[in-house]
Amino acid sequence: MQKFTSVADVSNVEELVTLARDLKSRPQAHHHLGQHKTLGLIFLNPSLRTRLSTQKAGLNLGMNVIVMNMDKEGWALEFQDGAVMNGTTVEHIKDAAAVMGQYCDILGIRAFPTLKDREEDYGEHLLKKFIRHCKVPVVSLESATLHPLQSLADLITIREWQPDGRRPKVVLTWAPHIKALPQAVPNSFAEWMCRADLDFTIAHPKGLELAPQFTDGARILHDQHEALEDADFVYVKNWSAYEPYGQLYSGGEDWLLDNAKIAHTHQAKIMHCLPVRRNVELSDELLDGPQSLILEQANNRTFAAQAVLLQMLAEL
Amino acid sequence: MQKFTSVADVSNVEELVTLARDLKSRPQAHHHLGQHKTLGLIFLNPSLRTRLSTQKAGLNLGMNVIVMNMDKEGWALEFQDGAVMNGTTVEHIKDAAAVMGQYCDILGIRAFPTLKDREEDYGEHLLKKFIRHCKVPVVSLESATLHPLQSLADLITIREWQPDGRRPKVVLTWAPHIKALPQAVPNSFAEWMCRADLDFTIAHPKGLELAPQFTDGARILHDQHEALEDADFVYVKNWSAYEPYGQLYSGGEDWLLDNAKIAHTHQAKIMHCLPVRRNVELSDELLDGPQSLILEQANNRTFAAQAVLLQMLAEL
Amino acid sequence: MQKFTSVADVSNVEELVTLARDLKSRPQAHHHLGQHKTLGLIFLNPSLRTRLSTQKAGLNLGMNVIVMNMDKEGWALEFQDGAVMNGTTVEHIKDAAAVMGQYCDILGIRAFPTLKDREEDYGEHLLKKFIRHCKVPVVSLESATLHPLQSLADLITIREWQPDGRRPKVVLTWAPHIKALPQAVPNSFAEWMCRADLDFTIAHPKGLELAPQFTDGARILHDQHEALEDADFVYVKNWSAYEPYGQLYSGGEDWLLDNAKIAHTHQAKIMHCLPVRRNVELSDELLDGPQSLILEQANNRTFAAQAVLLQMLAEL
Repeated sequence: MQKFTSVADVSNVEELVTLARDLKSRPQAHHHLGQHKTLGLIFLNPSLRTRLSTQKAGLNLGMNVIVMNMDKEGWALEFQDGAVMNGTTVEHIKDAAAVMGQYCDILGIRAFPTLKDREEDYGEHLLKKFIRHCKVPVVSLESATLHPLQSLADLITIREWQPDGRRPKVVLTWAPHIKALPQAVPNSFAEWMCRADLDFTIAHPKGLELAPQFTDGARILHDQHEALEDADFVYVKNWSAYEPYGQLYSGGEDWLLDNAKIAHTHQAKIMHCLPVRRNVELSDELLDGPQSLILEQANNRTFAAQAVLLQMLAEL
Repeated sequence: MQKFTSVADVSNVEELVTLARDLKSRPQAHHHLGQHKTLGLIFLNPSLRTRLSTQKAGLNLGMNVIVMNMDKEGWALEFQDGAVMNGTTVEHIKDAAAVMGQYCDILGIRAFPTLKDREEDYGEHLLKKFIRHCKVPVVSLESATLHPLQSLADLITIREWQPDGRRPKVVLTWAPHIKALPQAVPNSFAEWMCRADLDFTIAHPKGLELAPQFTDGARILHDQHEALEDADFVYVKNWSAYEPYGQLYSGGEDWLLDNAKIAHTHQAKIMHCLPVRRNVELSDELLDGPQSLILEQANNRTFAAQAVLLQMLAEL
Repeated sequence: MQKFTSVADVSNVEELVTLARDLKSRPQAHHHLGQHKTLGLIFLNPSLRTRLSTQKAGLNLGMNVIVMNMDKEGWALEFQDGAVMNGTTVEHIKDAAAVMGQYCDILGIRAFPTLKDREEDYGEHLLKKFIRHCKVPVVSLESATLHPLQSLADLITIREWQPDGRRPKVVLTWAPHIKALPQAVPNSFAEWMCRADLDFTIAHPKGLELAPQFTDGARILHDQHEALEDADFVYVKNWSAYEPYGQLYSGGEDWLLDNAKIAHTHQAKIMHCLPVRRNVELSDELLDGPQSLILEQANNRTFAAQAVLLQMLAEL
């Protein structure tokens, strides 16, 4: 695998899930593979789970791991080709990426969207330039529009907990929030679910449609109650509007998920990528209840990253 | 050992000191014990000695060490159970701790007090919630009210330098400062000294009494000169008031320690946990003089941490 | 080698270059040498290349590497001896350095100049105090006035790409910028070039003379066109004035280097230490063209650092 930025980079999704589950049972089995190999994790934004789990994944594989917070320990990057750099940006991404690629065998990068310029964000220009110039395999640690390590961990979790003998019904339901959030997690979850063999429904208020290129094959409903019927998994997540781009949805507090709302599901498992605004997005009772998978998902982040890194190491 | 947050977590204090001194002479002797084990060090506040010495301790034991500055590389944590998280906090400590515990075999955490709400600080709610939810052994890297790794290093240092043939006299003397500081170091030092077999005196201006639960067994004097008489060790440290809580003591400049002040001691060794405000808390002549143990204390931080980690690893 | 702060610390420059080139071809050959040894990298300022390449160098040698951003993860240091520390500084460098030296076998430190007090900066007081008090070998990661790891990497690059059969002509040309930059890189480059066996010319506008102690033996011209004639290597770099100290040169935009300017060179290779302000210091066409060595220089930073660390480890 040369890059891991989307489900489109994966030749066989279920094989990758199987590999990750195998690594979960034997995390040190391939410890020799990463000897003398360096994983560089570059953050342009804050991170907890991705930061720790991807480090852990690299260490499990015997790699050296170097973490850099480019935004705090470095300086502002320029993304425009041909720019006359007489402003506030100190280094062009083409130079920074090329240099990082010389010190590392595999690179990860996190860079959030502006939420201001949709074309810019959805063009994934930053990520694409980073990949083009660093010349080593790149793992997205969450880009402007997708978060594939999260989605892979989510699919692993679904496969671990799905009911026997039938295709699981998975529902992604929008949730209220107080801040305009990126669309990366729901885009990515939709993209992976549409690719997997399962029944996938998205529920959100009218006007919060996700980018259509990621939801092809999903059933889309604006009635949360109807969507949740007979669900096996309910994935709760806020996102800001795709159109008008980046806008915080005002209202929608009645979309907060709680026990009453899931009474007509198949005792649905509750999923969230974290961090979660408790009692704003969904209730404590659900998050802390027996149907919650939020910690299973977080735990699987390590093995999602490890499976991806393993495939990259194997081809170095 | 499941947690190291206070001397109360230690079954045999002098055995732990002996273990640390043994590790000091053979730091790599247990390098195999930490193989494939991960130590996560979580900082909610700045750190120098604790940061470096605890990393070093983990590395000496062959562990992988991951450091995270939650305050800078992550986001603000919520500590209130049941909170409707519609404010500035991004993630509840119960989620953050649980997730960190999935990626790490042992966790360390540093979190300073507010110095505003005594009940909140002395309840050690943050630390307790972290321990409850992370579900792995936890080392305090300094909590709201105690700093046990420092105190263990201090006791190691005292045992190395104590006079032969008699119980050493140890004096903790308050020192002036320009900022209101936490009570964690003096509380902790008092707690450990009261537990150890030695003669322990605390000297401070009236009104700067430490929390009584940590000073039981100590002689408490308000006359610095009297307290220092025949001392073998003088530990110099500022703290803010316990009552009214967190208040900076105004005055007390005459408590600055210098050579003249220790003339009637047993050529007392001078101790300080660092960082020290030179010539405010005590004089350059003392800090840089032949009786100063400040660098010995700092050096012993590594072996204090290593002894604690070793006991935790042995029980994993 | 006990310290690496200037070319003056190197007994045989060309031997060090040869060692670095050998390490480049066999980076893991001495992996045993650093076992159980700890490299501490202390940053008081931002860094990308130095941060990553020096970590990589230490890891290639089998060392444990601990990175600390003292400015962000620690606190403000006091540099004045005898200071009454009742202001904003929290710890004296003599204490911080001594403590760091206890946890690490080799230390690196980066500390930029003030650009306000020339005597202070050129006295290198901070670096000297750090070295005196930490008591372990110290690698400068760029000090107030010099950047020897960069210059060693530059010389390695020149030796790799120099023409056969004649002494190469190397030209350091000043370039415009929008900020007042330190003189460390050009001082250091000049110092190393004057020591190496090659033909060295410096070109800059009148009034931008570098500190004379570093340019002894160089030809100094104020006519960029004349200086560039028959050049084999052109090193492009901005610096602020030495006199009046730290002042941004106003004007000089015509010193921006582009293809036309180097037409009368020997198809000169283009060098820059990075980060570079593209199309302000020099043109995209040069930076991205076939004569550009900027990525070769950055790559050689690893082996420059590794050669220095290897010599230090060999003497531990």
